[in-house]
Amino acid sequence: ASPIRATLFPGDGIGPEIADSVKQVFTTAEVPIEWEEHYVGDQIDPRTQSFLTWESLESVRRNGVGLKGPMATPIGKGHRSLNLTLRKELNLYANVRPCYSLPGYKTRYDNVDLITIRENTEGEYSGLEHQVVRGVVESLKIITRQASLRVAEYAFHYAKAHGRERVSAIHKANIMQKTDGLFLKCCREVAEKYPEIKYEEVVIDNCCMMLVKNPSLFDVLVMPNLYGDIISDLCAGLIGGLGLTPSCNIGEGGIALAEAVHGSAPDIAGKNLANPTALLLSSVTMLRHLKLHDKADRIQDAVLKTIAEGKYRTADLGGSSSTSEFTNAICDHL
Amino acid sequence: ASPIRATLFPGDGIGPEIADSVKQVFTTAEVPIEWEEHYVGDQIDPRTQSFLTWESLESVRRNGVGLKGPMATPIGKGHRSLNLTLRKELNLYANVRPCYSLPGYKTRYDNVDLITIRENTEGEYSGLEHQVVRGVVESLKIITRQASLRVAEYAFHYAKAHGRERVSAIHKANIMQKTDGLFLKCCREVAEKYPEIKYEEVVIDNCCMMLVKNPSLFDVLVMPNLYGDIISDLCAGLIGGLGLTPSCNIGEGGIALAEAVHGSAPDIAGKNLANPTALLLSSVTMLRHLKLHDKADRIQDAVLKTIAEGKYRTADLGGSSSTSEFTNAICDHL
Ligand SMILES: CC(C)[C@H](C(=O)O)[C@@H](O)C(=O)O
Ligand SMILES: CC(C)[C@H](C(=O)O)[C@@H](O)C(=O)O
Repeated sequence: ASPIRATLFPGDGIGPEIADSVKQVFTTAEVPIEWEEHYVGDQIDPRTQSFLTWESLESVRRNGVGLKGPMATPIGKGHRSLNLTLRKELNLYANVRPCYSLPGYKTRYDNVDLITIRENTEGEYSGLEHQVVRGVVESLKIITRQASLRVAEYAFHYAKAHGRERVSAIHKANIMQKTDGLFLKCCREVAEKYPEIKYEEVVIDNCCMMLVKNPSLFDVLVMPNLYGDIISDLCAGLIGGLGLTPSCNIGEGGIALAEAVHGSAPDIAGKNLANPTALLLSSVTMLRHLKLHDKADRIQDAVLKTIAEGKYRTADLGGSSSTSEFTNAICDHL
Repeated sequence: ASPIRATLFPGDGIGPEIADSVKQVFTTAEVPIEWEEHYVGDQIDPRTQSFLTWESLESVRRNGVGLKGPMATPIGKGHRSLNLTLRKELNLYANVRPCYSLPGYKTRYDNVDLITIRENTEGEYSGLEHQVVRGVVESLKIITRQASLRVAEYAFHYAKAHGRERVSAIHKANIMQKTDGLFLKCCREVAEKYPEIKYEEVVIDNCCMMLVKNPSLFDVLVMPNLYGDIISDLCAGLIGGLGLTPSCNIGEGGIALAEAVHGSAPDIAGKNLANPTALLLSSVTMLRHLKLHDKADRIQDAVLKTIAEGKYRTADLGGSSSTSEFTNAICDHL
């Protein structure tokens, strides 16, 4: 069989190093993927209004799958954030963040197993803001029936496909009755089509309190954009941070762009110190999207085993291994 | 000296029971306060558009201080939420929520000591929402220079008065550049007047992650309305929940309305099972506002000692004491 082509954005800072780690692991595991590498440009591409080139977006569209390292949006005016450009241009409507305790890596919480599914295109991220009069500004939060149904549908579909029991819709409809109210209405409509999945609605403030008290109260959580931004980071914190959690963005037409959501850590860039776990586990979600479950399982097991054994861990996990030592250890487990 | 008059809203559900507990403790501690009790009405008062009567609001305005139990907003149209009515009508611009670990009551976190100061009048709570076209709705988030400066000023004043080291402004100005940007600008202006207090800015998602990983990274946190709603509940979760955390609302002209922010728990109402801790610790913040530090210290110590000893605890804390047994134990410690 001819290899599957996938787009790879190594990204900035530690990006190239952790991308190298993924490439090495994929080669060792004989994953039938051929990478098409794309870098962030050094000038604004007028076709994207961003430092991301048109060609790189075309590459993801053509391949349907991609993997992305951290990208540091260059400072200055007249262009859009790289992450937001990708979400908008590729219509990445759902951001899926699985969050599970890593065996052997102790935090305050055991057995965390949560899936945050975040609406990724609208809400508080509309970009619509203006000054009403001096000293009075407003931002618009936009909720549409179409985007809400789409992400709710994805959440229930995901829950069913992954044998999950329950979907919780997170909201603040007691205050934002119209916007969050519409979001809930759409979730309820979809819930009716999935009688085998339990459905509940939880107010965002209460959800955060319950998550820190007892995360096992939740299973799959679906929510508007900003709440998803907040809750997915909170959940990551429960198991050790963004360096350990995968993320995958789902777009119209079946596009999947997996990404490490942590920063580009310029302070340790190029020093062979970065932890590639988030990008590796994100690449696993990409493999699952391609139905390469066999390869996905093998890589995930090897990563988790390496962390569990604890002999090779990067500094952020309290160890002293380099990125390559950690990667080699993973490859040894394959 | 003639007693100080203070308004008391016992509230609904378990409200009257926990208010009785406060009254008993105040009597035992000989606090020179005379309560003016007000209940939520059974019909909408046209002058407040809410079930809260005009007289009860006048009582808080006249006395300048009050204490409030949980209020369950009656269901139906044509009236405003009771909490929101109080905030708007009394211009309660800052909500202060101290959150500290209770000695002897174990959670996953030790030595939590955080103060959340929430802008309480605008932001996402503007109530301005409408349908643009079918299936497209929007909510307006409003940030004003006046309200932002006012709450920032309060936060720095509080930090200084309470010997705190640092104020962190929590925001999402990378996305809401105009609204949260204005909020930050105001915080920076105020920060310059308090060179002895450290100042930093933290993005809300990152803040939530850091709070669950290591809450001691923070000290005093100030933020727009919805973020305050979320973060204060998250913080409460760290130390055991809303049943244990005090809250005090500060209004223009020095009004202080302390309140228990937990729900009215109708399932256990009238059964002498409720935990009065949140209302008691809120009453302590009210006493501090009145500069009755002596009484405040004595009551706070007695509450904390009773919980620390563990002999008398209500069911929510794993004990089997009734509200009155717990209250009597506190009084014995006075
Ligand atoms: C960098 C920022 C714009 C982004 C967001 O807010 O969505 C990030 O926090 C994320 O979660 O991917
Ligand atoms: C009940 C609700 C309207 C309220 C709020 O969102 O402010 C509550 O969560 C609070 O924090 O007091």
